[in-house]
Amino acid sequence: MSETLISTLVSPSGSMSVLSNNEVKQLQDTTKGGLYQLFRQCSLAVLNCDEHSDNPYKILEKYQSYDIRIIHEHRGLKLQLLNAPGNAFVDGQLIKGIKQNLFAVVRDILYVANEVKLHAAVNTESSSDITNMVFHVLRHANAFRPKIHPDIVVCWGGHSIGEVEYKYTKRVGYQLGLRGMNICTGCGPGAMKGPMKGANIAHAKQRINGSRFIGLTEPGIIAAESPNPIVNELVIMPDIEKRLEAFVRMGHGIIVFPGGPGTFEEILYILGILLHPNNRDIPFPVIFTGPSTAKSYFADIHQFIGKTLGLEAQQRYKIIIDDPETVAREVKFGLDEVTRFRRQTGDAFYYNWQLTVDHEFQQTFEPTHENMASLELSKQLPAYKLAANLRRAMSGIVAGNVKEVGITAITEHGPYKLFGDPELTEDINQLLHSFVINQRMKLPGSGDYEPCYEIIGKQ
Amino acid sequence: MSETLISTLVSPSGSMSVLSNNEVKQLQDTTKGGLYQLFRQCSLAVLNCDEHSDNPYKILEKYQSYDIRIIHEHRGLKLQLLNAPGNAFVDGQLIKGIKQNLFAVVRDILYVANEVKLHAAVNTESSSDITNMVFHVLRHANAFRPKIHPDIVVCWGGHSIGEVEYKYTKRVGYQLGLRGMNICTGCGPGAMKGPMKGANIAHAKQRINGSRFIGLTEPGIIAAESPNPIVNELVIMPDIEKRLEAFVRMGHGIIVFPGGPGTFEEILYILGILLHPNNRDIPFPVIFTGPSTAKSYFADIHQFIGKTLGLEAQQRYKIIIDDPETVAREVKFGLDEVTRFRRQTGDAFYYNWQLTVDHEFQQTFEPTHENMASLELSKQLPAYKLAANLRRAMSGIVAGNVKEVGITAITEHGPYKLFGDPELTEDINQLLHSFVINQRMKLPGSGDYEPCYEIIGKQ
Amino acid sequence: MSETLISTLVSPSGSMSVLSNNEVKQLQDTTKGGLYQLFRQCSLAVLNCDEHSDNPYKILEKYQSYDIRIIHEHRGLKLQLLNAPGNAFVDGQLIKGIKQNLFAVVRDILYVANEVKLHAAVNTESSSDITNMVFHVLRHANAFRPKIHPDIVVCWGGHSIGEVEYKYTKRVGYQLGLRGMNICTGCGPGAMKGPMKGANIAHAKQRINGSRFIGLTEPGIIAAESPNPIVNELVIMPDIEKRLEAFVRMGHGIIVFPGGPGTFEEILYILGILLHPNNRDIPFPVIFTGPSTAKSYFADIHQFIGKTLGLEAQQRYKIIIDDPETVAREVKFGLDEVTRFRRQTGDAFYYNWQLTVDHEFQQTFEPTHENMASLELSKQLPAYKLAANLRRAMSGIVAGNVKEVGITAITEHGPYKLFGDPELTEDINQLLHSFVINQRMKLPGSGDYEPCYEIIGKQ
Amino acid sequence: MSETLISTLVSPSGSMSVLSNNEVKQLQDTTKGGLYQLFRQCSLAVLNCDEHSDNPYKILEKYQSYDIRIIHEHRGLKLQLLNAPGNAFVDGQLIKGIKQNLFAVVRDILYVANEVKLHAAVNTESSSDITNMVFHVLRHANAFRPKIHPDIVVCWGGHSIGEVEYKYTKRVGYQLGLRGMNICTGCGPGAMKGPMKGANIAHAKQRINGSRFIGLTEPGIIAAESPNPIVNELVIMPDIEKRLEAFVRMGHGIIVFPGGPGTFEEILYILGILLHPNNRDIPFPVIFTGPSTAKSYFADIHQFIGKTLGLEAQQRYKIIIDDPETVAREVKFGLDEVTRFRRQTGDAFYYNWQLTVDHEFQQTFEPTHENMASLELSKQLPAYKLAANLRRAMSGIVAGNVKEVGITAITEHGPYKLFGDPELTEDINQLLHSFVINQRMKLPGSGDYEPCYEIIGKQ
Repeated sequence: MSETLISTLVSPSGSMSVLSNNEVKQLQDTTKGGLYQLFRQCSLAVLNCDEHSDNPYKILEKYQSYDIRIIHEHRGLKLQLLNAPGNAFVDGQLIKGIKQNLFAVVRDILYVANEVKLHAAVNTESSSDITNMVFHVLRHANAFRPKIHPDIVVCWGGHSIGEVEYKYTKRVGYQLGLRGMNICTGCGPGAMKGPMKGANIAHAKQRINGSRFIGLTEPGIIAAESPNPIVNELVIMPDIEKRLEAFVRMGHGIIVFPGGPGTFEEILYILGILLHPNNRDIPFPVIFTGPSTAKSYFADIHQFIGKTLGLEAQQRYKIIIDDPETVAREVKFGLDEVTRFRRQTGDAFYYNWQLTVDHEFQQTFEPTHENMASLELSKQLPAYKLAANLRRAMSGIVAGNVKEVGITAITEHGPYKLFGDPELTEDINQLLHSFVINQRMKLPGSGDYEPCYEIIGKQ
Repeated sequence: MSETLISTLVSPSGSMSVLSNNEVKQLQDTTKGGLYQLFRQCSLAVLNCDEHSDNPYKILEKYQSYDIRIIHEHRGLKLQLLNAPGNAFVDGQLIKGIKQNLFAVVRDILYVANEVKLHAAVNTESSSDITNMVFHVLRHANAFRPKIHPDIVVCWGGHSIGEVEYKYTKRVGYQLGLRGMNICTGCGPGAMKGPMKGANIAHAKQRINGSRFIGLTEPGIIAAESPNPIVNELVIMPDIEKRLEAFVRMGHGIIVFPGGPGTFEEILYILGILLHPNNRDIPFPVIFTGPSTAKSYFADIHQFIGKTLGLEAQQRYKIIIDDPETVAREVKFGLDEVTRFRRQTGDAFYYNWQLTVDHEFQQTFEPTHENMASLELSKQLPAYKLAANLRRAMSGIVAGNVKEVGITAITEHGPYKLFGDPELTEDINQLLHSFVINQRMKLPGSGDYEPCYEIIGKQ
Repeated sequence: MSETLISTLVSPSGSMSVLSNNEVKQLQDTTKGGLYQLFRQCSLAVLNCDEHSDNPYKILEKYQSYDIRIIHEHRGLKLQLLNAPGNAFVDGQLIKGIKQNLFAVVRDILYVANEVKLHAAVNTESSSDITNMVFHVLRHANAFRPKIHPDIVVCWGGHSIGEVEYKYTKRVGYQLGLRGMNICTGCGPGAMKGPMKGANIAHAKQRINGSRFIGLTEPGIIAAESPNPIVNELVIMPDIEKRLEAFVRMGHGIIVFPGGPGTFEEILYILGILLHPNNRDIPFPVIFTGPSTAKSYFADIHQFIGKTLGLEAQQRYKIIIDDPETVAREVKFGLDEVTRFRRQTGDAFYYNWQLTVDHEFQQTFEPTHENMASLELSKQLPAYKLAANLRRAMSGIVAGNVKEVGITAITEHGPYKLFGDPELTEDINQLLHSFVINQRMKLPGSGDYEPCYEIIGKQ
Repeated sequence: MSETLISTLVSPSGSMSVLSNNEVKQLQDTTKGGLYQLFRQCSLAVLNCDEHSDNPYKILEKYQSYDIRIIHEHRGLKLQLLNAPGNAFVDGQLIKGIKQNLFAVVRDILYVANEVKLHAAVNTESSSDITNMVFHVLRHANAFRPKIHPDIVVCWGGHSIGEVEYKYTKRVGYQLGLRGMNICTGCGPGAMKGPMKGANIAHAKQRINGSRFIGLTEPGIIAAESPNPIVNELVIMPDIEKRLEAFVRMGHGIIVFPGGPGTFEEILYILGILLHPNNRDIPFPVIFTGPSTAKSYFADIHQFIGKTLGLEAQQRYKIIIDDPETVAREVKFGLDEVTRFRRQTGDAFYYNWQLTVDHEFQQTFEPTHENMASLELSKQLPAYKLAANLRRAMSGIVAGNVKEVGITAITEHGPYKLFGDPELTEDINQLLHSFVINQRMKLPGSGDYEPCYEIIGKQ
């Protein structure tokens, strides 16, 4: 059934149906500066939402004949889909949630292109310019609800967790939903879909009409983690760092479900930010939670954080095992704190302007062997700097495990080499080893794990 | 946790917050003609939605201290709950869906009381008067959407089915929901809850805002099958026969999931009506479906219907095993037929005026030993008359199995005795035997089944 | 152009499109107990909204060929109009406001008929039963907005006032509208239309979407004062006394514009109620206002009230001449008082349950010579009783001036004779004389006024 | 009363309450490149909507102490007004329509500034770039309703017409409104306000909720023609030429009421465009209408057009005197033509992409003596070129009559001199003379008119 390809015309349901002639040209421009390639790739990811693979290249290959064109009509814009994945359709009709997300793609890639052009023309890439750009992209996507009290809970965690952990994310989502909270994730399956499904049923019971299931993605990962149609607010950020910044500025609290090194990277990101001296007094609820199967995962991480980033870092999160109701109550309590604080300090409910995101967390990290080798891994660094470098290390390892660019580099040059304080490198090795043993390094059932790294202590 | 009792004030969310002084008096009138007892009992059932038991008396016993009062305020009516079941609340707040259903109780019992009074004053209980009363109760509950194409699918089936069959009802609901259909059931758990949960997630994907999850109940069963909070349109019909008539006049198609003798009773009801000569040309899609575990249940019933009610009866339904997508497509196709037919004949989309419901199907059947023994069970009867009598027989057996009145009668007088054509009684015995063997007579795990009937052939 | 007659099918825009077969029969029943005559007469009045005449018989004569029928369709009810007044249409399309009011007629006359039937079957006509019936009719017409603060201003006054006074009513309406208040009148032209037109433009400036322009009418006057299409909530009360009770229970304040003896009758009604000992402490803002041309009208009335009903009666209203802004501010201030009081006493915002309306004000007064002659007109009566009798006297005079029944009686038996205290009759004569002189007894330009009464003092 | 100055905080009602830190800086930037001066001036014009003067400098002078600041809060943006005109308030509360228009100012001046910056960085000012910019500004102001059939009627005409002509514009608006049409004008009083008031009451009768009263303005005229609060969609275009282009691309038909040389300039603009060879087959209804007092005004213009632009130009409009109903029917008929044509050619309902607007009509004309003297006025020119030059001539005369820049120039250098074909200059002189005689050159009662021009024929 899934192999059917469907060609059809799609007209928008919402208001984003109006493009200028210039914009149509940009989207159809197949030259280097044009947006066509990006448009095709992102729209395909949205259409291919039912199938998940760690290898986005397979998708592009599978749907080589896929094409998308823009048709102008008296009622506005239509999209012409050619050889689109059949799973996006029910009896020949495109699922409406997918349709909306398709038009979100149009909206965002045009806007981002112009925003980037404007920045290039006028500004340097200062830290505050990046923060403003993140703001503009979110606002243009209509992601702000000015008068609403903080209610957006970001859920992070693995996209390939097992059935027990997946069900647990649904139960947590259900308890969050019963308390009126909305969900924001990185799109994709697993821990990013479960909470939305749970909240959806709870919102039905609570007769909540304007449920928000926000998915933040970016062109580089949308193919691998394509947005489930439950996502009813899809935003395509310019790149991975702006996406992470969007999470922490727009979200009011974070729940981390179990995952692998990618999830650990996200933990290091949020802790790195919260440990910045400027952010010390800003309330930001962070909960690590999972069913009892996830107990050791979080215990290992907790121990590692204690040894490396210290007690203060441990104070910024809570670990709650197998208790969705308490998780939801804790988060709700945290959001009330956030509300109180924003009111007191006059900061916006909908955007965390006060949070300092250091320029180091806004810059892209290229996982080359050279960059990896020169990462400073030392307990002498201030905690938030160390967190930044550890995050980069994890980012490289994730790339070496699953991303094309990393795998190629490993094949050519052998494992990444990382150097640091002997005590620290020992801790890192130990943690990574526990990931390997618990089958969190790779998909279960995909064979033995061959490490893509060597972590070496030196004086 | 479930044993907590909560006392609180509840104000309505919708418009039904306005009562006259007379009406408040009626609801608080504890004398015989007053509505207080009914009000207390139905409101308790709505509040107790999370716990299901075949024995409503247990509930009443458990919450003896429960009370409900009406408070008048400048913004209208409030309800004061005393010692209400804690499960209806989240952190002390009544779940909004439950709150709405609570006010539906107020709305319906007042209206029905007055409607009955008016009928008593003016009319005899003619068949068309009953049909008009069903109409008035539904309209007063705002259950009609005049311009909407037929889209209401009634789901029948057991409330205590196993996990596999329950999941299957969810999958069917999902496929119905993807195609924009709404669900109507008799409230309660099992086959009455699963389809709504499935449709709910599908409606989210299709961005359907005004999902309708209609629950039709009546005072006699609401305690045993209390409405799940997903039910967002609860209607309390005056009695069981008017409830059944509401299903067939308001629903546009029926799906029957597996169950026991109660479900079989419902099958006999709908077939009895469709076999009436006046209804021969009225399209009405009926599907029997379940996972492979339900195959023999439906096969046995199919065979029985063929032998007793004949080929024509078999033509009025389709059996589809383990294929939710086909079920949904078939129903959709059937609804298109209904639409076409209503348009052609000028009948209302929202109420099936044309259907003849014989007075025999509108009258209550008391399952006394005498009434059971005098049922005419003969293949000489016209098919729709035979269906009516078989339905009564099943109704008696259900009572003998689980209802207080039936159990008491059996204890006193021994099993019911039914008499009929030898060939027919043989068929009945065989079918009931298969129910016993397949553990569909009683809850699984509740011990061996002791029949409450003897079915005797006589010349 | 106005003489064109149009025949067409009309389908409802709102939800009141759903009738039972029984109800259709009632509306089409041309026998004595049937509703057809009432339906035809009220619907014609609604359709004939652009022409106003003091003589409703002319209208019935003019549109003798008018007919209305009910058509049942798959999408619900349609109305078939035959030879309807062309002014109700724009390019062949029925004006939507008129269409809505047409369906309000269907809604109310069916409901009232059943309500009356129910009352006849069950109750005696006690004072509280009448108050409950008024409540039920208004609620059924969806006239209550439970959570809204008091904002309904009743506007009374003549329907045939001159241009200057008409413009003044618009200016007052504009100032009320700027302050968010809604308007309730008795339908018809003049002082009942101007405030709505003024408020309409003010609501546009204030971006108020749910403007309420409520028209309360009853079958006896709807033909003479047919509802302007700006009226967006039309309610047809059972009779004139229930309509008056609806004004004072639903309205939160009253503005009286100039008029003739009919307007004076309304003044006596509201003062009679407010003077009842039970109502002494209930806040109820009443303002008499008009442009400078109306100064003497209100001065005469004020003087008369002082002499007859006393200082306390004078304390219950304010007279403001030629100052719309102050009028609006005073009313607003009064509504704030009402809000505070309802909150404090727990009375509903939307229905003034606390107000005592004496049974004398609920009963119909037949203006026969005998009834007029036996009215007790004496300053010895308690003020509210005297107000009641004076109101009846005015009611008779209005009938003698313009109503068929009164005119016929006068022609046969000569002027009405009223008897009372010499001092009191002197006051009455003086006031009525001032009405005659100021051309408020009859339409200006309709010739000299011939009194239909003699008011005789006796010891 | 009007002299009261009010200081207060204003929070937005709609969604445009969210600014980035960068944007707040721009609005508060009082340096040359900053937006503060523009923001202050436009916001003051919006607040000063009740007073109209041909001299915007008077306003700035009168409210010298006026200031506006931006406050950031947890719920988003607020505006702090200091010493704002009291007429914008009712009992201390800002009229909501004015508030909305105030936030439209914020929205548009920020957007236009960035759009202009982007254009400067990337594009040349090609004709199609201007057309795209007009589109982007309108879309950003949410001015497009993609699925709605053409229904926007542009009303042009004088802002200082007399009472009779003003009432006539209301009657036309009423008839347009009864037929469901929306109104677009240039803001301000007179012919720009009357049609909206008339349509408003008609929309109430037709129960139209989403009435659109669109005002298109630009910074140079907003102070002189400040938007009436009935305008519920205010758009501030970058300059006068883009505003004119917005009228013809967004409007679906044009009604011209009487006015003076300014109105005649607008007539020449629309005729110049419609006479372009590319536009020959594009339907675009244009009606000149007024009460009988306006008959000679339009007759003179009609004659002039016949003599100068020829029969084809006369075919592009209809003159209808004193018949609002026929005007509305004609326009409606024209819009149906537009609908048909757009559908057929696939052009958008909401933006007239097909219309060619020559670059000459997009460029600003500076009314210097030199530019005026070098205008080519010759019947040898193609009609649309001649129309362009005549429009410029009129534009100069309007400036010479009432604009600071023109009056100064005339004072210094004497009347403008224009040269052309003797026959043509004779026609021009004759037409302008008729304007003078009919007191359409200047406000009535402002004394004798002293021409600011000499029009000289030469071989």
